Amino acid sequence: MKKLINDVPDVVDETLDGFARAHADIVMVSHDPRFVSRAGGPVQGKVGLVSGGGSGHEPLHAGFVGLGMLDAAVPGEVFTSPTPMPIVGATKAADGGAGVLHIVKNYTGDVLNFETAADLAAAEGTTVRAVVVNDDVAVQDSLYTAGRRGVAGTVLVEKIAGAAAERGDDLDAVTAIAEKVNGQVRSMGLALAAGTVPHAGEPGFELADDEIEFGVGIHGEPGRERIKLEPADALTDRLMSAILDDLPFASGDKVLLFVNGMGGTPQSELYIVFRRAAEILDERGITLERSLVGSLVTSLEMQGVSITVLKLDDELTALWDAPVNTPALRWGV
Amino acid sequence: MKKLINDVPDVVDETLDGFARAHADIVMVSHDPRFVSRAGGPVQGKVGLVSGGGSGHEPLHAGFVGLGMLDAAVPGEVFTSPTPMPIVGATKAADGGAGVLHIVKNYTGDVLNFETAADLAAAEGTTVRAVVVNDDVAVQDSLYTAGRRGVAGTVLVEKIAGAAAERGDDLDAVTAIAEKVNGQVRSMGLALAAGTVPHAGEPGFELADDEIEFGVGIHGEPGRERIKLEPADALTDRLMSAILDDLPFASGDKVLLFVNGMGGTPQSELYIVFRRAAEILDERGITLERSLVGSLVTSLEMQGVSITVLKLDDELTALWDAPVNTPALRWGV
Repeated sequence: MKKLINDVPDVVDETLDGFARAHADIVMVSHDPRFVSRAGGPVQGKVGLVSGGGSGHEPLHAGFVGLGMLDAAVPGEVFTSPTPMPIVGATKAADGGAGVLHIVKNYTGDVLNFETAADLAAAEGTTVRAVVVNDDVAVQDSLYTAGRRGVAGTVLVEKIAGAAAERGDDLDAVTAIAEKVNGQVRSMGLALAAGTVPHAGEPGFELADDEIEFGVGIHGEPGRERIKLEPADALTDRLMSAILDDLPFASGDKVLLFVNGMGGTPQSELYIVFRRAAEILDERGITLERSLVGSLVTSLEMQGVSITVLKLDDELTALWDAPVNTPALRWGV
Repeated sequence: MKKLINDVPDVVDETLDGFARAHADIVMVSHDPRFVSRAGGPVQGKVGLVSGGGSGHEPLHAGFVGLGMLDAAVPGEVFTSPTPMPIVGATKAADGGAGVLHIVKNYTGDVLNFETAADLAAAEGTTVRAVVVNDDVAVQDSLYTAGRRGVAGTVLVEKIAGAAAERGDDLDAVTAIAEKVNGQVRSMGLALAAGTVPHAGEPGFELADDEIEFGVGIHGEPGRERIKLEPADALTDRLMSAILDDLPFASGDKVLLFVNGMGGTPQSELYIVFRRAAEILDERGITLERSLVGSLVTSLEMQGVSITVLKLDDELTALWDAPVNTPALRWGV
């Protein structure tokens, strides 16, 4: 295993130490219990937003803590759900008196631990709601999931719900916006090569030189099928068909198109995929209203890509455009 | 070769098509001659900034076209200098009547082609100056270079000179700022595994499972030596010693610390390196004034990292903080 790390058990804590130092103007890090929160503390009177999950998907979630997005994030060990106590800590750190929304990717461990934490926080006087993100159209159930997995669409839920909270929406309204985004967003990915979890020391799966995992999960979980490598346009056609036919997206829709790298994919390849995905939107009469390209929901150094499409309306577009100031997304401030 | 591409000769053009579509609010792309420029055209009365070089280092340089940074960028084929004609095209597209500064990474082909282009543009009435960036302390001469290579420090030259041009500095003043940044910035990198140039079809170099290239260039050029893989802290110590002793940086200095990923390195590893690099600054009495962490000057999907340190003063800090609105760096707007 070739990685720029020190002792394997220290990977997450040392990552967070560097992260806290680099972004001290935006975030602060608690190590016991382990969570990341806004440098300024909770915003009084604002609904707090908390997300979290296993590490290894950086910048998700800690990279999205800051104005206009999350109030706190809970990084578990690599590809491992955080336990309830740090989620409780993050929830209290995000509580400005207007309640807290948990944004949870649909993995069995995450859902259970966030539920337990919500009960514990409620017992201490914090009102908590949750939205479970399940945007991955690839498979119905999966290795760690009952129902669809939560993947890159989570970034869009966090950004748009974060903007709603920032403008002063109450807990019911922020929850409704988050549910709405989750209801209108669809994603799917593929992998060319696996990443290596530090504790495991070897790649999570093996693919032949001409083989890809179509519909892969962000932990390298199996997708729909293993197929031969095809040109980028053909693979993009496959992903877009699965995504667009699922909602379904229709002619006349306005969308945000997000092409996400899995960690080990050069930016050039993301733009090649984006190019074809945008052409497909044109062909279907769907308007490309907003764009996002980057490696934001990763799987360590996995080589691969996912595509996410969100159906927009004027309100969602305005919330997307609203100012955001986090380590990984920044505009308007 | 496993890549998300179509036909190999189309990689750069298709990347640019996707890039133009995703960032149509900021940039436009010309294909013949091939360059990227600001969507709104040249800013009248402002010094124009143009950079460029081989593709494969994305987001460098096209990702830095926009308000507060470059006016145009010239992407060559992968790891291949652009020829003079597209550089002339970009220069004219950047010319708002106050002259144009070429920011050139120190590679023999780039320097020659930018010089030729400057002569041609001058013959057509555009005043052109050039700054050659050579921030890499690893080796004196290299595979494609007489003198030191230009690497990740180029981003800092482009940002700070771009801010100087945006505030209205004239061509002499913008050139002087760019020279000043180049004079005060030092970088060095290492690689754990090579990237694959599409035309070549196989990795640019081979390393044993326990071996790294220490001092690697951004085209995978040899560095100082091949050494055994060490813990991240030990490798960071080596890089920081080479960098800090070179200028040299001294106790009391204020610096910008930039940890750059080479394309295939997870963000967590960048932060682990950042953490130790910041500790070293502390130990030497050097103040960490500004931070940048990201994969901004890449070598396709090479696994590795570089560290860049820039000595700041109040003027450079203010120019760094000034608004920027490009596909890859955005704040203040």
